[in-house]
Amino acid sequence: MIKEPVKNSREKTKKLLLKLQDTICKSLEHADGNGKFNEEAWEREEGGGGRSRVLKNGSIFEQAGVNFSEVHGKELPQSIISQRPEAKGHEWFATGTSMVLHPRNPFIPTVHLNYRYFEAGPVWWFGGGADLTPYYPYLSDVRHFHKEHQHSCEKVDKNLHKVLKPWCDEYFFLKHRNESRGIGGIFYDYQDGTGRIYKGKNKAGNASQISNEIGEINLSWDNLFSLAENCGKSFLPAYLPILEKRVSQNYTKEEREFQLYRRGRYVEFNLVWDRGTIFGLQTNGRTESILMSLPPLARWEYGYKANKGSREDFLTSIFTKPQDWQNDKQLEEFCKKNNIFD
Amino acid sequence: MIKEPVKNSREKTKKLLLKLQDTICKSLEHADGNGKFNEEAWEREEGGGGRSRVLKNGSIFEQAGVNFSEVHGKELPQSIISQRPEAKGHEWFATGTSMVLHPRNPFIPTVHLNYRYFEAGPVWWFGGGADLTPYYPYLSDVRHFHKEHQHSCEKVDKNLHKVLKPWCDEYFFLKHRNESRGIGGIFYDYQDGTGRIYKGKNKAGNASQISNEIGEINLSWDNLFSLAENCGKSFLPAYLPILEKRVSQNYTKEEREFQLYRRGRYVEFNLVWDRGTIFGLQTNGRTESILMSLPPLARWEYGYKANKGSREDFLTSIFTKPQDWQNDKQLEEFCKKNNIFD
Repeated sequence: MIKEPVKNSREKTKKLLLKLQDTICKSLEHADGNGKFNEEAWEREEGGGGRSRVLKNGSIFEQAGVNFSEVHGKELPQSIISQRPEAKGHEWFATGTSMVLHPRNPFIPTVHLNYRYFEAGPVWWFGGGADLTPYYPYLSDVRHFHKEHQHSCEKVDKNLHKVLKPWCDEYFFLKHRNESRGIGGIFYDYQDGTGRIYKGKNKAGNASQISNEIGEINLSWDNLFSLAENCGKSFLPAYLPILEKRVSQNYTKEEREFQLYRRGRYVEFNLVWDRGTIFGLQTNGRTESILMSLPPLARWEYGYKANKGSREDFLTSIFTKPQDWQNDKQLEEFCKKNNIFD
Repeated sequence: MIKEPVKNSREKTKKLLLKLQDTICKSLEHADGNGKFNEEAWEREEGGGGRSRVLKNGSIFEQAGVNFSEVHGKELPQSIISQRPEAKGHEWFATGTSMVLHPRNPFIPTVHLNYRYFEAGPVWWFGGGADLTPYYPYLSDVRHFHKEHQHSCEKVDKNLHKVLKPWCDEYFFLKHRNESRGIGGIFYDYQDGTGRIYKGKNKAGNASQISNEIGEINLSWDNLFSLAENCGKSFLPAYLPILEKRVSQNYTKEEREFQLYRRGRYVEFNLVWDRGTIFGLQTNGRTESILMSLPPLARWEYGYKANKGSREDFLTSIFTKPQDWQNDKQLEEFCKKNNIFD
């Protein structure tokens, strides 16, 4: 049974997500030191609109996109109705902030964040998360990113991170490559306070069963609002220290080429597997805003294979497979031995 | 009622398509003058295999991929069964040759070709086509490419090109951009001699109704074999004169950047809309061979808009919309006036 959302639920979440966009953009401009976000406000014919912000050719960010939108319409598409049948026949409201950063330096990871909120008749739900896609990963960076998000989750419920971490591994997975998009982070969807979660099926994880294993996690509207708030807030402290640590690391032409090659995988995930992207493109969404996630430059190379034991090989042999980053001692030893711990 | 295929149908088509791969590769190496195809033979676990040939970093071709495959299996996937229910429960056989060329010079168009043949129990069918994706198109080139394919179609049936040209416009269409992939060519699928054609739905064309408008086109197995043979043969005379005409045309850094930007659209079509690509990726096909169609380098730029009346603007305002290239006098006048006729 879904409880009613709090009073002014739409205004509350909208305000939260607008603020998140503002805070992130301000900090990213500061971190970049040179690039400025260019804002484009847009309206949607069927109702609502948004503000897209893009920073191009900064000194650190080759491209940074941070979108806010608040849209409404008559009827949700079938793919969503099948997850939440109670929404059928009802007008809907959705608001979200999403971000993708593509730094130029291959030692600074690409990163994605999205938090969103839906209402449709008797139902409402929260979704979102953040995930990191390094090209030349360091275990210390990976642990830091996860730790920050873990803390934010645990402020809401001590068992929550154990669900949202593997859920992220499950979602951001390229089946046709048998690879994760990156080292993961957190992800959740259709959170309506009943503990129901999206039933995914994937070799990479078993998020759909985890809530049963650790008991039900029933979060109220307020809890879920706090989750988006906390996790949204933890993005900057999770990411900026990595950026600062890596920004002065020099890179070779070959390392840049490898980054561009791996950005091809980012394109593949977003266009082949990402439900949000495909749904948006196939249902007349704002194409430019949806595809802001794609990298400014990407490369494909038939039959590329990294040399065994190389830094590039470690990416696919270790860092694009779901791992217990925090606790795996063997992994820690391996990374220390290969100078990719810190 | 589907008639039986000719005796040795599998060997005949396999031989045709192997020869097509050989002929094309030989001519492309000759045209390039520098690059050589590297062949990789592969086997499929469930049965069959192929030979993938890739030429990288030639003097003309940044990448050229020509694949041959001959595969078989226990049961076709549902997406195909729904088109040909008679195939249900039967073992299947499929052979095909497909090619994508990505020249470096933005004045030479990208081009795609694919011819394929299926058998499954009582049913068999041919499919295929060729289409051109210019970045800086000239009407003379566009007409030449279409004229060559038109002749090949008309050798088989005088009304055939009137079906296969709009069918191509319909298939190679990016709904999320409201653009054709390029200037088209010919396309057909599920041709089994009964005149049934794939029921597509698209703003760009009405191929699914055209066969009714001009009367049924009933082609025998032999006719369809000849169609693949003729059209396959017409590729080199359709494309090489364009290549030769444009190869010495100098281009600026900006024109190269525009080409890379437009190659992004090629990626978008193949990963979001191309049934063959998506089907292959989602059903454990040979990923590297499937994605050989993707460009070696591509760019995305948020909010890009060409200057009105520029060469770049003409691409989307004129050349990525289905047109009657051969007969439209107004279009001809426009192109002459703007020095893009020849």
